[in-house]
Amino acid sequence: MENIKIVIWGFGAMGSGMAKVLLKKKGVEIVGVCDRNKARVGKDMYEVLGIERGERKPVIINPNIEEVLTEGCCDVCLCATDSFTKEAFPRLKFALEKKVNVISTAEEMAYPQAQNPELAAELDKIAKENGVTILGTGINPGLIMDLLVVCLTGCMTDVEYIQAKRVNSLSPFGPAVMEEQGVGLTVEEFNKGVENGTLSGHVGFAESVKMIADAIGWKIDKFEQQMAPIVTSVDRKSKYGFAAAGNVAGVNMTGQGYVNGEVKIDMIHPQQIEPEMEGTYTGDYITIKGTPEVNMSIKPEVDGGLGTIAMCVNMIPHVINAEPGLKTMIDLPVPRAIMGDMREFIKRK
Amino acid sequence: MENIKIVIWGFGAMGSGMAKVLLKKKGVEIVGVCDRNKARVGKDMYEVLGIERGERKPVIINPNIEEVLTEGCCDVCLCATDSFTKEAFPRLKFALEKKVNVISTAEEMAYPQAQNPELAAELDKIAKENGVTILGTGINPGLIMDLLVVCLTGCMTDVEYIQAKRVNSLSPFGPAVMEEQGVGLTVEEFNKGVENGTLSGHVGFAESVKMIADAIGWKIDKFEQQMAPIVTSVDRKSKYGFAAAGNVAGVNMTGQGYVNGEVKIDMIHPQQIEPEMEGTYTGDYITIKGTPEVNMSIKPEVDGGLGTIAMCVNMIPHVINAEPGLKTMIDLPVPRAIMGDMREFIKRK
Repeated sequence: MENIKIVIWGFGAMGSGMAKVLLKKKGVEIVGVCDRNKARVGKDMYEVLGIERGERKPVIINPNIEEVLTEGCCDVCLCATDSFTKEAFPRLKFALEKKVNVISTAEEMAYPQAQNPELAAELDKIAKENGVTILGTGINPGLIMDLLVVCLTGCMTDVEYIQAKRVNSLSPFGPAVMEEQGVGLTVEEFNKGVENGTLSGHVGFAESVKMIADAIGWKIDKFEQQMAPIVTSVDRKSKYGFAAAGNVAGVNMTGQGYVNGEVKIDMIHPQQIEPEMEGTYTGDYITIKGTPEVNMSIKPEVDGGLGTIAMCVNMIPHVINAEPGLKTMIDLPVPRAIMGDMREFIKRK
Repeated sequence: MENIKIVIWGFGAMGSGMAKVLLKKKGVEIVGVCDRNKARVGKDMYEVLGIERGERKPVIINPNIEEVLTEGCCDVCLCATDSFTKEAFPRLKFALEKKVNVISTAEEMAYPQAQNPELAAELDKIAKENGVTILGTGINPGLIMDLLVVCLTGCMTDVEYIQAKRVNSLSPFGPAVMEEQGVGLTVEEFNKGVENGTLSGHVGFAESVKMIADAIGWKIDKFEQQMAPIVTSVDRKSKYGFAAAGNVAGVNMTGQGYVNGEVKIDMIHPQQIEPEMEGTYTGDYITIKGTPEVNMSIKPEVDGGLGTIAMCVNMIPHVINAEPGLKTMIDLPVPRAIMGDMREFIKRK
């Protein structure tokens, strides 16, 4: 049986991270990489990754997707280019029309039904017409604050209220994340950034809330979210960030899903540099009131970067095995690490 | 659209518990109950449950399955009669041949491929021939020490070692469980009971280990399990159990799955009455070494009785939606609580 063939579109931290993982797996190979970053274009993927190529063919990073992604050239295209469904849409459409399965890291694509139901329906239609599958996934949205919540409700006969809380550190992240999350800003600058939309905060609450609600059969009648500065009382310094006492060390994102006018799903996601300096310990926490009550914690939190890379790679066989169309994490079998030959995970149809 | 129709086979703690939950759900009805217990035979299910029947038709408990389960009389038969695949097999075969989907609570049926691969293949064949699906599930095996482990590996790029630990209290359970687990025995009596097989301990380690290994692609070359008495140093008393100081308060089950001669999966499951009396606090714990490491805990442990009832009820739509054949929890979408009309969870084909 031939290797599973992968094209990676977008070779930033996520795309290149997936490449590194894929190169360690059996039964799978990377046949193309598309990226427009001038520092990478024209170079061999192995050189960019700092990995010995050995006997393998070079994979030259090409900025032109039409040259990289030709009809049926691979089994799955890993699309690590966007955060928003609207922006990702033309790329996803292009890939599906080349009759390849697609896994997108765009946060909104984890459940595009939440904010872009028309585009979701359109992607479903295009995928079906071309006999392929499209899935959005990642660590969050994708697992920690949604699929894992859904899975834990599986042992409950009644659910009354859900709280998902992810407390993580921004310290390992680079300058782009520091900027997006407002690390180091004064409170005034932060508030301006929220108003004019230059601070992104966490993208995905609307998607996680809708995924959970649809999975268990709740109808959400209102969704709200808030973005507040985490003001530090001491100077905090990470590799790429610095927040002086009185300034912003990170963002506290909160979100609420209402059912019949009542908050039934609470999302709490404070992200900051050096949280331990003021006694905050990182972790993922899920509390579900109902019968029986479930109180779960993962300490420390699952690493966001590695987690997203793993989820995308690990879902490759499920996406190949799935019926054509737009799928979400609640439609497919549970994700799992791939420790054996990836081809053995493929079901013959 | 008509209600989803359910037959319950076996009306002990699990079967009757499922009935109580189903009666609170929308879009589903119980059309038959088979049970041979003389105290229940001939009585109306509602009377046995102590639930007002209201406008609903009586459901008379019938000891004769051939009268209860006729061809296509229901969508799903919940079979809560056995622990072992061999013993459950003729009943499961009978139900499948009536062209109804089956959910079994038999612990070994959570992954019959582990200890009865021939019977598993036979059930798969019979189910396919009759166009229906069969699934074994429960809280453990079924979720806590296997599916949840698999799900958490989904965010990992590499798995080195897995430990699943379920520390639970036997205090809520009745006299039958006290006897099966050896509560109150002397150490000598306990050891005799292990030797001659009268003490069952936990059934399911072989199934959980094989499910995890198959899911992530490890080949298990050896499986072992041990059953040791938990000797109390103080008198312990629960509603139905009593262990004098120096005697047995419960069972510590341990199991190991080996890959290439090395223990890769460790199962630890101490069950006892009144664990807090000697400083043991109940909980479910999953530790997965690898990249990134995952340390999960659920405190207190998910209630075993309610959890099994919930899992069986909640998997009804997934079993109806599945392709024909024998399925396990790693083949189907994640379990989820059913809070809306159950019919809305059914995919039109």
